[in-house]
Amino acid sequence: MAAQPEPYRWTASHAVTKIRSGELTVERFAQSLLSQIAARNSDVQAWAYLNPDLVLEQARALDRIPLPERGPLHGVAIGIKDIFYTKDMPTCHNSPIYASDTAVAVDSGPVAILRQAGALILGKTTTTEFAATVNGTATKNPHDPLRTPGGSSSGSGAAVGDSQVPVAIGTQTGGSIIRPASFNGIYGYKPTWNVVSREGQKICSLILDTIGVYARCVADLQLMADVLNIKDDEMPTGTFSVRGAKFGLLKTVVWPQAGPGTQAAMAKAAELLRDHGATVEELSLPPDLNDLPEWHRTVISTDGRSAFFPEYVVAKSKISQFVIDQVENSAGITRRQQMDAFDCLAAARPRVGEILSGYDAVIVPSVPDEAPLGLESTGSAVFNVIWTAMHTPVVNIPGFCGENGMPIGVSLVAPRYQDRKLLYVCEEVGKIFESEGGWGSRRTTEGCK
Amino acid sequence: MAAQPEPYRWTASHAVTKIRSGELTVERFAQSLLSQIAARNSDVQAWAYLNPDLVLEQARALDRIPLPERGPLHGVAIGIKDIFYTKDMPTCHNSPIYASDTAVAVDSGPVAILRQAGALILGKTTTTEFAATVNGTATKNPHDPLRTPGGSSSGSGAAVGDSQVPVAIGTQTGGSIIRPASFNGIYGYKPTWNVVSREGQKICSLILDTIGVYARCVADLQLMADVLNIKDDEMPTGTFSVRGAKFGLLKTVVWPQAGPGTQAAMAKAAELLRDHGATVEELSLPPDLNDLPEWHRTVISTDGRSAFFPEYVVAKSKISQFVIDQVENSAGITRRQQMDAFDCLAAARPRVGEILSGYDAVIVPSVPDEAPLGLESTGSAVFNVIWTAMHTPVVNIPGFCGENGMPIGVSLVAPRYQDRKLLYVCEEVGKIFESEGGWGSRRTTEGCK
Repeated sequence: MAAQPEPYRWTASHAVTKIRSGELTVERFAQSLLSQIAARNSDVQAWAYLNPDLVLEQARALDRIPLPERGPLHGVAIGIKDIFYTKDMPTCHNSPIYASDTAVAVDSGPVAILRQAGALILGKTTTTEFAATVNGTATKNPHDPLRTPGGSSSGSGAAVGDSQVPVAIGTQTGGSIIRPASFNGIYGYKPTWNVVSREGQKICSLILDTIGVYARCVADLQLMADVLNIKDDEMPTGTFSVRGAKFGLLKTVVWPQAGPGTQAAMAKAAELLRDHGATVEELSLPPDLNDLPEWHRTVISTDGRSAFFPEYVVAKSKISQFVIDQVENSAGITRRQQMDAFDCLAAARPRVGEILSGYDAVIVPSVPDEAPLGLESTGSAVFNVIWTAMHTPVVNIPGFCGENGMPIGVSLVAPRYQDRKLLYVCEEVGKIFESEGGWGSRRTTEGCK
Repeated sequence: MAAQPEPYRWTASHAVTKIRSGELTVERFAQSLLSQIAARNSDVQAWAYLNPDLVLEQARALDRIPLPERGPLHGVAIGIKDIFYTKDMPTCHNSPIYASDTAVAVDSGPVAILRQAGALILGKTTTTEFAATVNGTATKNPHDPLRTPGGSSSGSGAAVGDSQVPVAIGTQTGGSIIRPASFNGIYGYKPTWNVVSREGQKICSLILDTIGVYARCVADLQLMADVLNIKDDEMPTGTFSVRGAKFGLLKTVVWPQAGPGTQAAMAKAAELLRDHGATVEELSLPPDLNDLPEWHRTVISTDGRSAFFPEYVVAKSKISQFVIDQVENSAGITRRQQMDAFDCLAAARPRVGEILSGYDAVIVPSVPDEAPLGLESTGSAVFNVIWTAMHTPVVNIPGFCGENGMPIGVSLVAPRYQDRKLLYVCEEVGKIFESEGGWGSRRTTEGCK
C-alpha cells in the first residue's frame, strides 16, 4: 500500500471530510501546509503576507470549536489575494502607498463569509499593483521558476498550483483569474459578475471586476460556491453526462493570437468530448461583435481614471506610469468613447447569452499558450476579456500540455447566472481532460477522484 | 451697514476665499461651525460622529500649513456620510454590527481626495442602515423638527441645510442625494455614475450607487467637481444665458404621485424660465420605458442579495428585516428577472441620453412634495430612481415652497458625462429659482450672490 500523501496535497473537500471525522486536526493541516510553504517559498514566493504563528493560533482556535458549531469550510485553509481587507493582516495591493504593518480592522465581504464558514485564512497572496498592471511580481511559476505564474492574481494561482494551499481567491478585471489558472495547471472559476459581495476589495473597474476562486478540483469550487451563496434559478441535480451533451467550440476573433499549445489543446478538448459521446459544434460570434476586446480595453482604461485618482493625488510618485497614464487619460479617450464602449458591451450581453444558451457549455481558449518565459510580464489576457466584459461564468479546466511540458487549460463558459450548471458540467469534463489531456499524469492530488 | 454674518453661514467658496486672504483662520471657521452645531444639535441630530477636539486639532494643523502648500479646499469643512471610511473616525453604517469606537485606518477614495485638497473632515453624518433602508434615523428636518430630513443621506442633507457645515458628501442608490436636498432646501448633486472613486464606500448596488455632494450654492458644487476631477469632453466657459436657452420639462410616468407642492413647483419653474426668455418644451419618454422604475426596483433588490450577504452570515440578528428580505430574496425574484432588468436599464441609457441631449437641461420633479411629517420614513424616491438607473447627472435646485412653508426643489438632468455643462446651467437657473421661487427669501447665505 502506497504511503498516504501529506495533508498539504489534499483538496479542500478531502481535508474538510478528514477534519470533520476527527482524522485530522486543523493544526496538523496547517502545519503540513506551512512546511510545504517553508520548503518551496524561496522558489515560488507566492505570499505577500504569511505569519505562521498567527496561522497556528487560529488553527488551534478552530480545533477548540465544538463539532455542532462548525461551519461548512471548517479548517479549510484559504489564500487571499492582497487586495482584499483582512482584519488581522495588512492589505498592501503591491503598492508602496499601502506598505505598512497595520491591518484595517475590517474583513472584506468574501473574507467575512469564508471566515464565518470556518475557513482558516492562511495569508495574503501576491498581486500586481492594484491588480491593475501586467508587471510581474516576485512570484514564480511553481512548474518552472523561469516562467511567470500569470497575474494579476499571481500568488493565488501559484500557491494553489504548488499545493501550498488548497483554495485561494482572486479577482479578474481582464484575465486575472483564468490566465493564472491555466499557467499553474489548476481550476480557476470566475463567477457571474456581482454574485459575490465586493465590499472591501480594491476597485479597478466597477463593471468588470469579478471575484473568483482557485482550486485543484471542481468539488472544491462547488464547496466555495455553496458557501458564497451562488445559486442558479434551477440548481442542477444528479451527475452530468458528457455522452449526448452538446458543446460549442468558440475560437473568437482573437484566435490568430493562439499559439501551438492552445491550438492543440482546443483540438484535443473537442476530440476528447466527441470520443466520449458528446456533440461539439464550432460557432462564432456575429461580426458586429468583433470589437468586444476593444470595448473592454476602452472601459478598463477609462475606469482607471476615477479608480486610481485618490492614490494619484495622495502619492503620485509612488504609483507606476501605467496607472498614472490611466488617471491622466494619456490615451486621450473621450467621455463619449467611454460611454459608447460601456453601452456596446451592455447591448452585447443578452445577445451573447442567447448564443451560449444553445449549448451545455461552450469551450473557449484560456490563454495564448503556456506561461511565457520571464517574470517581467504576467502574459496576455486577450482570450479572457470578452467573458469578463460579458459577465458570464467561466471555468479554466486544466489537463493539457504545451511544447515545454507546461500546463495549458481551456475554458468553459455558460450564460450569466448559470454558474452551478457550469460547475456541474465542468466536474465531468474535468475528469476527462485531466486523465486524458496529457497534463494530469504529472499531478498528484488526493480527493478529486 | 448690516452686521457680518457668522462664518458658519458662509458657503465653502466664500470661506475658502476668506481663509486664503488671511481674514479667517481654519480654527475660527471650525469654532463657528462647532458653536452652530452645539446650539442646534439637540434639535437636528445630524451627526453620527463628531469630535470637537479632533476637529480643532486638525483645523490648527491646517492653519500651520504654509500658503504655497495649501490645496484648493484648504479649510473647507466637509461632512461625510457614515458609510465612507475615514482613517481617524469610526464608520458605523448605522448598524450595530459596526458600532465601535475604532476607525479602520484607511480613508475612502473621496475622503482621501478631499483631505489631500485641504478639506477639514468635520465628522460623520447619519445614514439609514447601510444607506439601504428608508427607516428614519434620529435626524430631524432643520426647518421643522416634526418632519423627516429625507434619506438615506439624512445627516448630510440636514447639516448643510442647517448651516452646520457648508458641504457634505452622500450617496444615491434610489433617491438618497436628491430627496434630502429637496427636503432641506439645498443643492444636491448626483454626478454621472462612477466619475468619483467608490473605494471604501459601503456597497448597496454596484450599478446604481453614486457618490454625490450637498451644498448651499452651485459655486460650491463646482469647487467640489474641480477637486473630484469631474470633467466633460468640452468644458463650458463664460456664463450660461437663460435667455434663448431650451429646456425640457419631463414629468415621467410617476407624475400621478406628485402632490400639490411639486405640481406647483414644476409649473412655477417652467413659468420663471419662460419669463426669463427661455423655451420650455414638455416632453415624455417612449412608452416602452414605462417600466424604468420597476427595472430599478428589481436591480436594487437583487443586488442586496449579494451586497449584504456578509453581514447576514456574520450577524443576521443585528440587521433589519428589510435587509434580511433582500438577502433571502423573499420577493422571489429570479436570476432571469434580475438579468433582464439589468439589461433593460442598460439598453435604455443611450436612448434616454439621446432624448436629453436635445435640451440645455431637462427639468424633472425631485420629490412627491414637501418633507412628510414623521421621522419613521425618509420618504419616497419615486422621482429619483429613473435618473439613478440612467447614470445621468442630476442637480436638485431649491427655491420653491410647499403648502406648509417647507422647501421643495426641482431637478435638472443632463446626458451622462455632461456634469459640468449641467452645473454651469444650474448656476444661472438657481439664481432665478432662489430669488423668485418663494423659498429663497427665507434663507440667509453669504457668498452665493
